[in-house]
Amino acid sequence: MTPPNPDRRSERARRAILDAALELCQEQPFAGVTMEGIAKRAGVGKQTIYRWWPSKAAILLEAITDRGTGTLDFPDTGDIVADLRSQMSEVVRAFNDPMFAAYNRGLIAAAQSDPEIAAGIVKTIIEPRVDLCIERLEKAQQAGAVRRDLDPRDIVELLYAPLYYRLLLHTRPVTPDQVDTILKLSFTGIEA
Amino acid sequence: MTPPNPDRRSERARRAILDAALELCQEQPFAGVTMEGIAKRAGVGKQTIYRWWPSKAAILLEAITDRGTGTLDFPDTGDIVADLRSQMSEVVRAFNDPMFAAYNRGLIAAAQSDPEIAAGIVKTIIEPRVDLCIERLEKAQQAGAVRRDLDPRDIVELLYAPLYYRLLLHTRPVTPDQVDTILKLSFTGIEA
Repeated sequence: MTPPNPDRRSERARRAILDAALELCQEQPFAGVTMEGIAKRAGVGKQTIYRWWPSKAAILLEAITDRGTGTLDFPDTGDIVADLRSQMSEVVRAFNDPMFAAYNRGLIAAAQSDPEIAAGIVKTIIEPRVDLCIERLEKAQQAGAVRRDLDPRDIVELLYAPLYYRLLLHTRPVTPDQVDTILKLSFTGIEA
Repeated sequence: MTPPNPDRRSERARRAILDAALELCQEQPFAGVTMEGIAKRAGVGKQTIYRWWPSKAAILLEAITDRGTGTLDFPDTGDIVADLRSQMSEVVRAFNDPMFAAYNRGLIAAAQSDPEIAAGIVKTIIEPRVDLCIERLEKAQQAGAVRRDLDPRDIVELLYAPLYYRLLLHTRPVTPDQVDTILKLSFTGIEA
């Protein structure tokens, strides 16, 4: 795939296509959305869409990146547990927003058979957020609130993975309670 | 969907279909496998398949359940950390087996838009394994190796979620090292 050339795109058509993709994902499961359906809703030809994007997941990824999904700031009140709790609670809220959950699940599903989408999700959605959390954890390490012998990237994984586990494996609902549980277990440890 | 009636199935055709699904998933991404392709490979009509299963994911789920994916025993040497390490290392090996990873990713992807598949994965693949780990953790709690004030189900989530996080979000490879990291962080805690 060659990257889309922005000069050759009509910005108006691009917006219409991105909006159409977001709309359709709100109306039906991502698996049921088609390139044809997006073209029809956007009022453009299917060829136009295929010239710019290789898949519906690529369109959705661009639509989400384009809109931004909420603020990227990580809170810093000086209390690392409180800050993690408030940021993780935002994630819980997002996972419980039917629209956001649909996008998120649809994209991650597509990533399982499309390495470009997988790389796009990591680069545009996950990494910027992980980096901010790492930065906050490093300050907490310097302040003596978090062990310095641990890699902050591993800590981020330990804290956020259980939220994705429930979202994607559908074992239990993602709830605000889960954040308290994760923080309790991971901060003090499970060893007796 | 009505559940398939085993009496009306030819066991030979059923096996052929399950084998065909497994074979095709080894040869191509799950997203590219079709009901038509499975029917052709199994040498049966498409109608036959649709009479018994509503989707390719349902076929794959039955194929995997039918074969069993490895032993279900949870080790018990008396050393909970060693036992978790050896069981979690099995999961890492499975996640790095291209065939198993393909099934697993394909099924979980399908689960994002198919609640029946999601429920099937939890019931037939995840829950039996979680239950065995819970049983082992309860023994460790009784033996005084793991805190008794924690719900073993939450502990299982904390330990295994980071493996699924890397598998499904494609952030980093799932490695044996990751098991050591998870055990270190979760047993002693991240608090300074």
